[in-house]
Parts: sequence; structure tokens; C-alpha cells
Amino acid sequence: MSPVPEPSAELLQRAGAVRSAAVDLGQTDDAQRAGALLSMGDALADHADRIVAANGEDLDRSAAEGLAPALLARLKLNEAKLHGAVEGVRKVASLPDPLGRRQLHRELDAGLVLERVTVPLGVVGVIFEARPDALMQIASLAIRSGNGAVLKGGSEARLTNEAVMAALKAGLAVSSVPPDALALLTTRQESLALLRLDGLVDLIIPRGSNELVRFIQDNTRIPVLGHADGICHLYVDAAADVAMAVRVAVDSKVQYPAACNAIETLLVHRSVAPAFLAAALPAFAAAGVSLRGDADSLALGVAEAAGEDDWNTEYLDLILAVKLVDDLDEACAHIRRYGSRHTDVIVTADEAAAARFLAVVDSSGVYHNCSSRFADGFRYGFGAEVGISTQTLPPRGPVGLDGLVTYRYRLRGDGHIAGDYAVGERQFSHQDRPL
Amino acid sequence: MSPVPEPSAELLQRAGAVRSAAVDLGQTDDAQRAGALLSMGDALADHADRIVAANGEDLDRSAAEGLAPALLARLKLNEAKLHGAVEGVRKVASLPDPLGRRQLHRELDAGLVLERVTVPLGVVGVIFEARPDALMQIASLAIRSGNGAVLKGGSEARLTNEAVMAALKAGLAVSSVPPDALALLTTRQESLALLRLDGLVDLIIPRGSNELVRFIQDNTRIPVLGHADGICHLYVDAAADVAMAVRVAVDSKVQYPAACNAIETLLVHRSVAPAFLAAALPAFAAAGVSLRGDADSLALGVAEAAGEDDWNTEYLDLILAVKLVDDLDEACAHIRRYGSRHTDVIVTADEAAAARFLAVVDSSGVYHNCSSRFADGFRYGFGAEVGISTQTLPPRGPVGLDGLVTYRYRLRGDGHIAGDYAVGERQFSHQDRPL
Repeated sequence: MSPVPEPSAELLQRAGAVRSAAVDLGQTDDAQRAGALLSMGDALADHADRIVAANGEDLDRSAAEGLAPALLARLKLNEAKLHGAVEGVRKVASLPDPLGRRQLHRELDAGLVLERVTVPLGVVGVIFEARPDALMQIASLAIRSGNGAVLKGGSEARLTNEAVMAALKAGLAVSSVPPDALALLTTRQESLALLRLDGLVDLIIPRGSNELVRFIQDNTRIPVLGHADGICHLYVDAAADVAMAVRVAVDSKVQYPAACNAIETLLVHRSVAPAFLAAALPAFAAAGVSLRGDADSLALGVAEAAGEDDWNTEYLDLILAVKLVDDLDEACAHIRRYGSRHTDVIVTADEAAAARFLAVVDSSGVYHNCSSRFADGFRYGFGAEVGISTQTLPPRGPVGLDGLVTYRYRLRGDGHIAGDYAVGERQFSHQDRPL
Repeated sequence: MSPVPEPSAELLQRAGAVRSAAVDLGQTDDAQRAGALLSMGDALADHADRIVAANGEDLDRSAAEGLAPALLARLKLNEAKLHGAVEGVRKVASLPDPLGRRQLHRELDAGLVLERVTVPLGVVGVIFEARPDALMQIASLAIRSGNGAVLKGGSEARLTNEAVMAALKAGLAVSSVPPDALALLTTRQESLALLRLDGLVDLIIPRGSNELVRFIQDNTRIPVLGHADGICHLYVDAAADVAMAVRVAVDSKVQYPAACNAIETLLVHRSVAPAFLAAALPAFAAAGVSLRGDADSLALGVAEAAGEDDWNTEYLDLILAVKLVDDLDEACAHIRRYGSRHTDVIVTADEAAAARFLAVVDSSGVYHNCSSRFADGFRYGFGAEVGISTQTLPPRGPVGLDGLVTYRYRLRGDGHIAGDYAVGERQFSHQDRPL
């Protein structure tokens, strides 16, 4: 039995209202949606005192209930953090419109013209844990891309989220976008039932722990944008520049170890392992990284032994597994077996080896001579990041605003019928026109 | 409990062999894959006698088992049909390569260059009913796009499919593509277990009845390319040219009524209904179409009454439901409620009404003044059709070869690390380069 309950009549009604508002939202133009985001930003600034006060209540209650200090820190939304979030909303307003882009423009025959044009998905469902800034970020991305959003935050942040949502809706109320385009769910029961709103919700975006994402992926038929694991590898090839390999490996692990794009396993070609580890061991030690190695790397000075589980573990911490391999093919096979198709790196001066790695490793990001930490929508120049997807089908990798749109074919004729082509009375021309 | 069994060790081993061959296939170039398809076509021609003989045995056995005449006709693969299928394989060889297309090319900083390039999905799983030509078609589309394929045909066509697969593999054996890239499953048990090969199979393509597709969609976590229902609508607007509306409506229903892109419901604006039905009723009668109308259309001469079920039914036959509506909004609301987001048509001389319909109706195809029957990959000029998808996320609508590819980000640097950008030592340039 699935642990996910049927949606209540009230939830269906609320989601239906969002869907209906989303139809109107889908008809707005670029300037109207950008204007709505600026209104949302202004309203957040106007409501700052109320939001910060509500957050104070959430913090007090959660502290009394014993919420861990790290989670309290994530929950906290002071004036400065709120200011940053408002700037984020305004930044999304300034991004180029992802809608109405013509991807195909083709005359099928005289007077019969096909277009493929980007359109909103419809309604996105968002489930996020303690961070209240996620609400502002995702709501602004959804509205910018013409989508309604049904959002569910953590119970710790309930009052904060309600205050933020009140501000966002107040902003929409003085814009061209209907405030009903956004809805905040408040009970856990509703959050679960959201996973069953097929037909009302087109995409689920989870923002939280790997466990949250995996639970959602396992319990919904709605497409999920995101990833559960980020087990990224760095392979130090026989022809690697050792100094570069050490520098890239250390950055890939320590620049932000809790990120999904940090590496968890170092694969080292046997021939370069003595030189590499001689330089890398002190560098990792200086950075506070504990290494866990296979038998061969233990023989070269790695202190702690790795078990089978280590190849499967996303440490999200200053821990790194190390394994020696015979060649590039063994490295690729290890990545295929244990990786999560997120981001994998080769360091080598051998262009042929690099080309083979980039062709064979089937991850959303394959890198040569640079840090895995570049796997990020902002670093790719997308201006905003909806999430990072490790699924096979597009969108994959870091996903910007264009991950919240789809396309539609529009065909305009003048009474054209298929029968005329079937009997040979007319022929298709299939002439592409300028986009 | 799901009716789908766990994959057997043998199935896992076979699918793993396809996956492994697909890695090599993914490294082949355009000419090698096109050459492999020509080899497959030659081998099919060489094996024609054996294939036709095997098909004769399948036909005899199925006829003795009482298979319906229509299904026997679909099962039949004579010399002429086989010749057509071989031409189809050769045609796919001549299509432009969907792989290695650069979709994004951006310098993130001096010496740090990002590309987004199309790559194969990996392995597609195909489940098809009686038609043995589907095997040749899908196998050629898969190989052309660099994908392995695990295929399961109907038991009626078992000997035919085995003979076809033997020919395809014989063709691959003298090409650059490993024959293990294709595998034919033969038992129903295996066919079901295919739905559980997450991680080994990246996309399921069902070719068969609505029931087959719906069963597959309900019983797999692997993405499914296709659609269960094709409930397409034609809306005759107040400002429709009546003669054009009749012509387009008749073509949309009768040009091939068993197709998913035939219309099932006619929505008629109340103000034009008397004139439209006066012209349409004799035209539909002449074409052998039975109409089922709501109360208002019965009053205007439609003979048979429609029930609530009629709005939900894909007749796949010469039957058409008719409903009068007050305005365009009611038509759009009806389509939103009962449609399957396949293809919907408006006939009108009012450009504003057409623009609103094309903007509001959220189907993969929205048409103005032309037949719904144009919703087809060949008619769109894609050269081949993998299927028609009615899901929200891309690919949607008629899907050509590019529905069998995804993309990968490649980032090449020269020892670049993220830490340098975090501390402001380096800045991103984000300069797009020519594709």
C-alpha cells in the first residue's frame, strides 16, 4: 500500500483554483509577468516586519521543541536574509522570458504553417523543507515562467511561510497575475496528497534532503525535477598533471562539501597513484578531509579502509573514498556502477583519454580538468536554478527557467485537409522558415 | 500489489548485455550508424524467404487458434509488406544524425568552455502488439539514434519476430554496431518484467492498443513515450466559414477514423449551429458517420442522443459526438475537462478567437482552420515517427528521432576551480560562442 492518501475535496478545490488561475497567467505577456515579480518583491519588502516577526515565533517554538541548531539556522529569516531573497525575486524578474520562443517554424504546404512555441507547464508542485527563502525563490520562478504553484513548506516554518505567502499574494493582487496562481499547503496530509494530483499538477519540485526526494520519486506518477543522490567522481588519469589533479580534487571536495556536486570518490590510475597520493595526502589532510581507501591505496598511505558501502555513499561531508584503477575503462565501469549520473570529472593531459571519458560516461555533466563544483545553474549562466536533474530525459543537469516550460505545436491553415495529400492532389513542401 | 514480476536473472543479464553494447554503439559516428541500418536492410532482404515462411507459420497457428481476421491481417507480412519495411529502414538511415548536435556553447571564463550536446538515451524498451513491421521500424530508429533496444512483440508473431531479429542481427554483425545492441524478449513474463528494468532501460515505447499503453503507464517508473487516449475536438466557432468547417470536420473524422488524431467530439457555437448542422448532417451521413448529440443538437436534427460517456470515448470508428456551446470559453472548458491534450482544432474566420483558442487550449497540437489529421511526424516533416506523446513535458506531440536522444553538458577547463570564483579572484564571463 502506498502511504500517500487520496486528496481531500478541499485540496482538489484549491488545486483546481490554482490551475484555473494558471490558465489566465499563461495568457499574460512578458512585461506583465516581470511586473508581477517586481510587485511581489515590493510587497515582501513592505511586509518585512511581519515576516521577520512570524519567523521569530517559528524560531522560538522550534527551539522549544528541540530543533537542531543547524536546522534553526536554516529556518532563520532575518531582515538581511529577507533583503537578499527580495533581490533574488527582482533578479528573476529581469531574466529573459522563457515563454513564446519559437523552436520550429515550417511551411508544410502553401498556407499551412507549423510552429513549435514554448508554453508554461501549467502548475508546479513544490515541497520544501525548513528554508523559507525557497518559497520566495520557487514562487518567483513559477510566476516568471507562467506557471501556477502549489507549495508545501516544513511545519517548523509554518508562520513564516504564511506571512511570506500573504505578501506574495498582496503583490500579485496589484499586478496582472491572479493571486490564486499561488497556494500554500499547510498540513502534512495535504503535502502527501499533493503527490496524487496527477492532471492538476504537472511537475513536482522537491527541495530538501535526499530522503525527501527519494520518497517523492517513489510515491508519485507526476514527473519529479531533481535528484536523490549526487555521487560524483573524479578520475585522475595516467597522464594527469599531478599538481592540477590535486588542486581540482581538493576544490571538488572541500569548496562546499554538503553540496550535491562535491565529489565522493576519487579514482586514481595505478601508474600515477604514488606521485598523486604523495602530493594529495598532505593537501587533503590540511583541508581536514578524511580519506577511505581500497587495499591498494592503503598501501600508498591512505589511513582508513573503505568498505563496499563507501562507493555508494554521498558523504556530504569532509570524507572522500579513494580507489586505484587499472585504466580509464575500469574508472568508467566504476562510475557506471556506483555513480548517480550527476557530474564526473577526468583530470588528464591526454586529449584522447579525455574525449573517451566525456563520450562514455553517461552523466548529466562530464568534465575535463576542472572542478565538479561548476555544476550549477548560476555558474552555467542560467541566472536562476530550478534544480539539478539526474534523470536521463531532458531537462537534465542544472535546470534554469526553461525547465519550467514545455512546448506546443500550432498549425494554421486555410481549410487544409489531410485527404488531399493522401490522394496526391497536394504535396507537402516542408520548407523551414526563419525562427 | 503490482501485477508486474521481478526481472529474472536471465533477463537482467540480457538487458545488461544490451546496455553494455549500447555504450559501444554510443561511440559510433553518423556514417557507422547509417551504414549499420543499410546492412540491416540488406539482411532483411536476404532473409525475406525465411521471414515470410515464419510469418506463414504464425498465421496458420493464429488462425487455428481463432485470432480475429482484422488481427490476422495486421500480423500478415508478405513479400510486398516486407519490401516496404526494408525501404523504411533505409529511409531512417538517410535521416540527419540526431546525435552530437551542440545546443549550447558558452565560455564561462577564459579557458573554461561549456557545451550541451545531444547524446543517446541508452536503451529503449519497446512493447508492440501483433504488427511485425513495428520491430523493424523501432529497431532502426533506435540504432540510428545510438540506442540499444529491448523489444517484446506479441506471441502471435513469435516466429516472424524471431526471423526478423535474426536478420537484423545478421546485418549488424557485418557493421560497426554490436549485434547485442538489440534483444528480443519472447515470453509474457519477460515483457512484464521489462517494466521494472529501471536503470537498465531509459524509455519505454508502447506500440499497441490504448489498454496496452495505459497498463504500461500504470505499471512502470520508467518514462513512457506515447499516449493512451486521443480524444481530439473540433470547435466550430461563431465566425466559422460553414463550408470550410464541414470540409475540415469530415476529413478530421473520416480520413482514417481508427487513428488517434481523428476527432471524437464536435463542439459547435450555438449561433452557427443551425447553418453548420444543415450542411454537416448530410455530409457526415454520406461519409457513413453516426452522430451522437446533446439535447440542443438533437433539436437541430442529430438523430441519436449522446450520454456523459460519449464525451470521454475515443470511438476509433465512424461515430462522432456533437455538443452545442455558448461561446469559445465553454468550448475550451469542455476540452480541458474531457480532452486528452492530443490535438484540438478551431475553425473560425475571427483571428482573435483563433489566437485565444491556440493560447488557451493546452494540447500538444492546437490547430486553426485545418484537419486534426495533420498531427503526425511524417506530415510535420520529421521523416520518421517514434510516437505521439500527450504528456506535458517534452517531447510532446508527434516525436521524431530527436525523441530518442537526450543531452549532456561537457565542461573543459585547464585546472579551473570553483574556489577562485567564490573569493572573487576570477569572474565568470558567460560569453556565448557560435553553436
